[in-house]
Amino acid sequence: MAVYTEVPAERLAAFLARYDGGTLVSAKGIAEGVSNSNFLVETSTARYILTLYERRITESDLPFFIDLMEHLADAGLPVPRPIRDRTGKALQQLEGRAACLIQYLPGVSVSHPTPPQCRSAAAALARLHLAGQRFGQSRTNHLSRGWWAETAASLHGRLNELSPGLQSLVDNSLAHVGAHWPGHLPAGIVHADLFPDNVLMLGDKVSGLIDFYFACTDLYAYDLAVLIAAWAFPADGSAPDPALLDALLAGYQSVRPLSPAELAALPTLGMGAALRFLLSRAQDWFQPSADALVLRKDPMPFARRLAWHSAQLGHG
Amino acid sequence: MAVYTEVPAERLAAFLARYDGGTLVSAKGIAEGVSNSNFLVETSTARYILTLYERRITESDLPFFIDLMEHLADAGLPVPRPIRDRTGKALQQLEGRAACLIQYLPGVSVSHPTPPQCRSAAAALARLHLAGQRFGQSRTNHLSRGWWAETAASLHGRLNELSPGLQSLVDNSLAHVGAHWPGHLPAGIVHADLFPDNVLMLGDKVSGLIDFYFACTDLYAYDLAVLIAAWAFPADGSAPDPALLDALLAGYQSVRPLSPAELAALPTLGMGAALRFLLSRAQDWFQPSADALVLRKDPMPFARRLAWHSAQLGHG
Repeated sequence: MAVYTEVPAERLAAFLARYDGGTLVSAKGIAEGVSNSNFLVETSTARYILTLYERRITESDLPFFIDLMEHLADAGLPVPRPIRDRTGKALQQLEGRAACLIQYLPGVSVSHPTPPQCRSAAAALARLHLAGQRFGQSRTNHLSRGWWAETAASLHGRLNELSPGLQSLVDNSLAHVGAHWPGHLPAGIVHADLFPDNVLMLGDKVSGLIDFYFACTDLYAYDLAVLIAAWAFPADGSAPDPALLDALLAGYQSVRPLSPAELAALPTLGMGAALRFLLSRAQDWFQPSADALVLRKDPMPFARRLAWHSAQLGHG
Repeated sequence: MAVYTEVPAERLAAFLARYDGGTLVSAKGIAEGVSNSNFLVETSTARYILTLYERRITESDLPFFIDLMEHLADAGLPVPRPIRDRTGKALQQLEGRAACLIQYLPGVSVSHPTPPQCRSAAAALARLHLAGQRFGQSRTNHLSRGWWAETAASLHGRLNELSPGLQSLVDNSLAHVGAHWPGHLPAGIVHADLFPDNVLMLGDKVSGLIDFYFACTDLYAYDLAVLIAAWAFPADGSAPDPALLDALLAGYQSVRPLSPAELAALPTLGMGAALRFLLSRAQDWFQPSADALVLRKDPMPFARRLAWHSAQLGHG
């Protein structure tokens, strides 16, 4: 949500000279990304996003993210392509930061998705899952069940400050997902954070899937559960909109039909998705990082999603 | 330096429908402006800057700023033109804020101006002064001598926390400008804040003069003194670079020659310019506004400029 590192125009012009991409015409720091600084850069021939990776990202993960974006762009998905310089290098250094020049994609992030937009976004996620099967790398999901348990333990006693009874809701939900997490569903490359602000749309059509910095290897149906948590629930998180939920399921299955086992696991995976975002937001809430520029997001909408899933699963 | 107000894409698309300016293709919040939220908006036919005015700006001043930008654009200056909607209105309301859709101009802000860039910037300022003579409105400079004295009084005793001896340097400088401020120099519309980040350049050529939200009626030579404070001194503020200073004076005078009285007044006006930015930064330093997003800028580089002027004027 901020530009952490300023890049003097003179340095940016020199940086762009590494590429066959025209000369600098304009550069604006843009308010996107919480773990990096982003600039919308215009040259005499094209537009790009320039990303500088800040300390919240693990630098050894960057080749995975960048290779994945390139793989998906090669596969024809609307994923911004990392640009290689004349020597073939995509991952660079600029102003003491790891940096990457990335294709600019048109489109806007919708705030109130419609059913046709949900259908398109879910179909795009399914295409991403299929295209990822030919990607030769993998990355552990560090924000999965082990992290949920650790984080809930580290916040013990504080969750009730957010809302009375939240601690036991979280404990019961962790017990549920621990006991019922599916063991043998199809897995592969997942986006793991496909919220509406990470999807660019032109009308009802997806023009861009962005921000792959949580991408990892996990269950496809878990990624769909994250998509449902992000798209089907209203801002307050109370209960999903049936029309949006239907559109997400239909859109996904128009590209990659779900197995009966995947469909049966969705309620537990949905509980997991709610836990994941509740706990990361609660952690930021109570333990704000030294980096005060990171905006704290209210954890409560995900506590409400969790309560909804808990009630659906008979724990309510 | 931040986006204070988010505009949902759906609302932005509806807003753009008031104009003959194409349909929404992309919108990015940009890290520009300290008293407003800015978005780089692309439509199917053009690019624009959308500005939402936040509480640090006096809303009754907006027609002056917007009319002035339009007047200067009409006069052929590289000033972004406020866009009028189909009913002829430029000043709008959006998300509870006053708002204006403004022409997008190419160019980048330089961090280390060269003599040719100083020459171009100063010539553009002189053209602005001349073009402003046909503008029929005026606005008091609220950040002039009266404000300097009040602000210094309100910070009394605290300035030495920034640097030992700063209080007496400021007091002596206020006494000097009070006694020697020129009374009868040419005055008119001035930009009053033409720092390098408010000038867009393509190579050595000025492609944009932006951020008119301090524009007012004052001495032209004072505006030149602000330009010198902003462009001729290094970042630490120690002493001006003679080559940059010469380029600024030559560039300005290539368009509007200075009278002997204006030239003679420049040291006192330079002292005033250093006071103005020292005091506004010191005020933000000690009395940060409720709006914590406003970045505090170090006042000391302007304390050093002030010390340099004081020494030149024999008070050192």
